Amino acid sequence: MRPVHVAGIGKTAFGALAGRSLKDLAIEAIAACLLDAGKSTSDVEAVYVGNFDAPSFTGQNHLAPFIAGAAGIHGVPATRFEAACASGGSALFHAMQAVASGTYENVLVCGVEKMTSQTTARVAQILAGAGDAELESSIGATFPAIFAMIARRHMHQYGTTREHMAAVAVKNHYNASLNPQAHLKKVITLEQALAGKPVAEPFTIYDCSLVSDGAAALWITSEPSAIRVAACAQASGPVSLADKADITTLEATKLAAAKAYKQAGIQASDIDIAEVHDCFTIAELIAMEDLGFIDKGGSGPWVASGATSLTGSLPVNTSGGLKAKGHPIGATGVAQICDLILQMRGEAGARQVAKANTALAQNLGGSGATSVVTILQRS
Amino acid sequence: MRPVHVAGIGKTAFGALAGRSLKDLAIEAIAACLLDAGKSTSDVEAVYVGNFDAPSFTGQNHLAPFIAGAAGIHGVPATRFEAACASGGSALFHAMQAVASGTYENVLVCGVEKMTSQTTARVAQILAGAGDAELESSIGATFPAIFAMIARRHMHQYGTTREHMAAVAVKNHYNASLNPQAHLKKVITLEQALAGKPVAEPFTIYDCSLVSDGAAALWITSEPSAIRVAACAQASGPVSLADKADITTLEATKLAAAKAYKQAGIQASDIDIAEVHDCFTIAELIAMEDLGFIDKGGSGPWVASGATSLTGSLPVNTSGGLKAKGHPIGATGVAQICDLILQMRGEAGARQVAKANTALAQNLGGSGATSVVTILQRS
Repeated sequence: MRPVHVAGIGKTAFGALAGRSLKDLAIEAIAACLLDAGKSTSDVEAVYVGNFDAPSFTGQNHLAPFIAGAAGIHGVPATRFEAACASGGSALFHAMQAVASGTYENVLVCGVEKMTSQTTARVAQILAGAGDAELESSIGATFPAIFAMIARRHMHQYGTTREHMAAVAVKNHYNASLNPQAHLKKVITLEQALAGKPVAEPFTIYDCSLVSDGAAALWITSEPSAIRVAACAQASGPVSLADKADITTLEATKLAAAKAYKQAGIQASDIDIAEVHDCFTIAELIAMEDLGFIDKGGSGPWVASGATSLTGSLPVNTSGGLKAKGHPIGATGVAQICDLILQMRGEAGARQVAKANTALAQNLGGSGATSVVTILQRS
Repeated sequence: MRPVHVAGIGKTAFGALAGRSLKDLAIEAIAACLLDAGKSTSDVEAVYVGNFDAPSFTGQNHLAPFIAGAAGIHGVPATRFEAACASGGSALFHAMQAVASGTYENVLVCGVEKMTSQTTARVAQILAGAGDAELESSIGATFPAIFAMIARRHMHQYGTTREHMAAVAVKNHYNASLNPQAHLKKVITLEQALAGKPVAEPFTIYDCSLVSDGAAALWITSEPSAIRVAACAQASGPVSLADKADITTLEATKLAAAKAYKQAGIQASDIDIAEVHDCFTIAELIAMEDLGFIDKGGSGPWVASGATSLTGSLPVNTSGGLKAKGHPIGATGVAQICDLILQMRGEAGARQVAKANTALAQNLGGSGATSVVTILQRS
């Protein structure tokens, strides 16, 4: 396997973008990415589209040739990858593999989702499709309920508190306030987070990620460039909570992380900065543990201490995360890479961190049935 | 790129299988495939699932880890590939690439769709998602209407007749009557085909493929085996009819075929047997032309002459095709390979052809936005 680089990034602003279609968003991200990479549509050898459920959200299926054609990319293989909220990460994983193995020299990854044209109730129903239809969604276990159970168990087992989780929200809201492309730019206090509207006990609205529209794109290439993909690994775990041995650990993340660290030849302690999948505040805490940044059960006090803030020892979700940057599902795993690369290039503006030589992204699908871990390094 | 083999096949019967769930069908196909390959679940390094729209048909999304886990395959990457009716072919294409390039030694492909739990009207609406939501499906252009326009143009331009199209239906119904796993085993006459219930002028019900449930699986490996994947190519074309230069030719099929013939080092005339994407009878005729089996415009009289029957010079859709074997969308592209391999092994029973050393499968998505062409050869 040869070295693979990310030589271009493109991203739309995330938000409730009433006037923008799915196609429109994808075209903007792809055009920005091609411009950033200094490439044209005729350089693209294959298109990897990450999208969770455009058919349900917008009525448009067969999304990859639809988007590729609209962006002016014709003839080449164009495929949609679906792995729930890890759809973007999975598209990247397969694109990276194809370039690493010599199948292609240059490919385009685009993650996109248009969610806000549906009602909140319908969005919750569509999202619930990523759970087990027989054991979970059919009996009303939507994702806030599923992650609330995970949170309750983590609180019970490790003494994690609502304040620990709220600290994730406060940090990510603050970071997003410094990100011009974030969905929400509203700074909140710990008290506000704790007093938010209840969603599913112990979660308030501030423990939950946003429903957003947006797109992101990456230029993946064998040509030497400033940012190298040191590793990218995808792993699977049980879809339903009932099948998990321990719901406070997401095995797929542990598996993917172990593979990725081995592939990159580094350890968790070598990571300078990370974007992780904070679909709920508890998910960011658990990711800290599953990725090996802190011992099992210790994430709450660690994050609450400020260790993962912009000036902490390991800045996490400097973009604002799914919590406040927004979570257009298929775009999320791709946008994480864009945001890390802005930091690695020193182009992250007001949220720029001091050191970003080695960066990690973790993109989760469902309650951990898919996890993709990517490690980037300066070449 | 090293040689890739198909060392195992597994397929459920196709049909309106009221008592069978999506998961159940996938498990049956996977178990049969593993048994046929002499492998166990722990030998699987990655799972490639072809599925068009399980979320809309059944409410289950995040399908790949859902199916893999249910089949006893844990931890490894499991991803769903969506390319409309070419979803199965696209899953195979990516699996083949990954083994050819040395990324994996052994992977499992599973195509599956459960369609018949929805009403016919809802099925038509879900299928229409594979067209252009803005230009086609939103104004009522479902796929029978789209392919009827293609047929009308082919009739106008090349003198193709309703009898030519009906000949495809008669042949495929006959072939399916010899296939124990086919959805419909009803032999029809040309007169019956022509007098069928009208669907979209010039199509009767006998010009249209079936709505079916079913699953199919393949074991793709670097280990030497009796059947080699000589080539597999995926290409893209415009999603909407309005964007096609000539609606009587599906450019993606021509592109994919040209790549596949080149990769295999053979010509169209070297093919002994083919399974092609007869979603409508006109699609089988056009495939004959786009794949280079007959000159442009000449497919009607050629097929009506019996050239593609079981005893003809190039037997086509000996399984019964989408027309009569059935068309559980995500399964179709995978099942085509299973059916060709039965012929290549001499295990096709009453529908066995005399010569099947070099075989071709063509799997189409939408009205040609995706096409996958695969060539198999005896090792």
